[in-house]
Amino acid sequence: MIFRNGDNFEIDYQVTEKVYEGFIAIFNDRNPLHTDEQFAKEKNFVGRVMHGAILIGFLSNFIGEMLPIKNVIILSYTISFKRPVYLDDKLKLYATVADIFPSVNCADFKYEFKNCDNITISKGKISIRVI
Amino acid sequence: MIFRNGDNFEIDYQVTEKVYEGFIAIFNDRNPLHTDEQFAKEKNFVGRVMHGAILIGFLSNFIGEMLPIKNVIILSYTISFKRPVYLDDKLKLYATVADIFPSVNCADFKYEFKNCDNITISKGKISIRVI
Repeated sequence: MIFRNGDNFEIDYQVTEKVYEGFIAIFNDRNPLHTDEQFAKEKNFVGRVMHGAILIGFLSNFIGEMLPIKNVIILSYTISFKRPVYLDDKLKLYATVADIFPSVNCADFKYEFKNCDNITISKGKISIRVI
Repeated sequence: MIFRNGDNFEIDYQVTEKVYEGFIAIFNDRNPLHTDEQFAKEKNFVGRVMHGAILIGFLSNFIGEMLPIKNVIILSYTISFKRPVYLDDKLKLYATVADIFPSVNCADFKYEFKNCDNITISKGKISIRVI
């Protein structure tokens, strides 16, 4: 098992216009909370709320591209959304190896996304297997 | 609360070339399991394994666009990947209202994605709030 309990990673992501527009083009989620500034403000948000699923795309990038090995597969994700993400928000992903299971080549990461004010906007767990 | 325990939904999705290529263009996850046919076969898969995060994009579409109301926000997702999804696979999402919490305007959906052989490939829970 290449991972050790407590191994940690920090990666920068940003919900750019390209990410936001691209996500909508692929998945066709034009819910007014995501696309209608007026609607979002009526619901007490500062502006259009970015799709939470975009953060899972960032987690896919993290596991697929940012680990020291490529031979991994994701078993599960959990994610809770604690605060809204807006267009152009810069996020920092903090992920830590929280548990390892060498007999089955598995590991659990705990993670948080924080915004530029260092506030946690989302958190959860990723379980992976080394293949 | 507009939802009732046991309300259920069935939606068809497909991991088309457009979805797969679009996802990679946005999130830049080119892990060989997703992009290298030879690598995937060496790891005992039939071919390139589609990104699990794509299924979360479908769930975003489901909650944002396919419910009888638009004024919803997602609080959390869980997803477990039980079997691989390959390019062009047609999936059916089966989602059921599993619990409602009227005092806080929240509801939990349980869901499964099944492939065209009616085999469960992925399952989990979505928590939402009516806003």
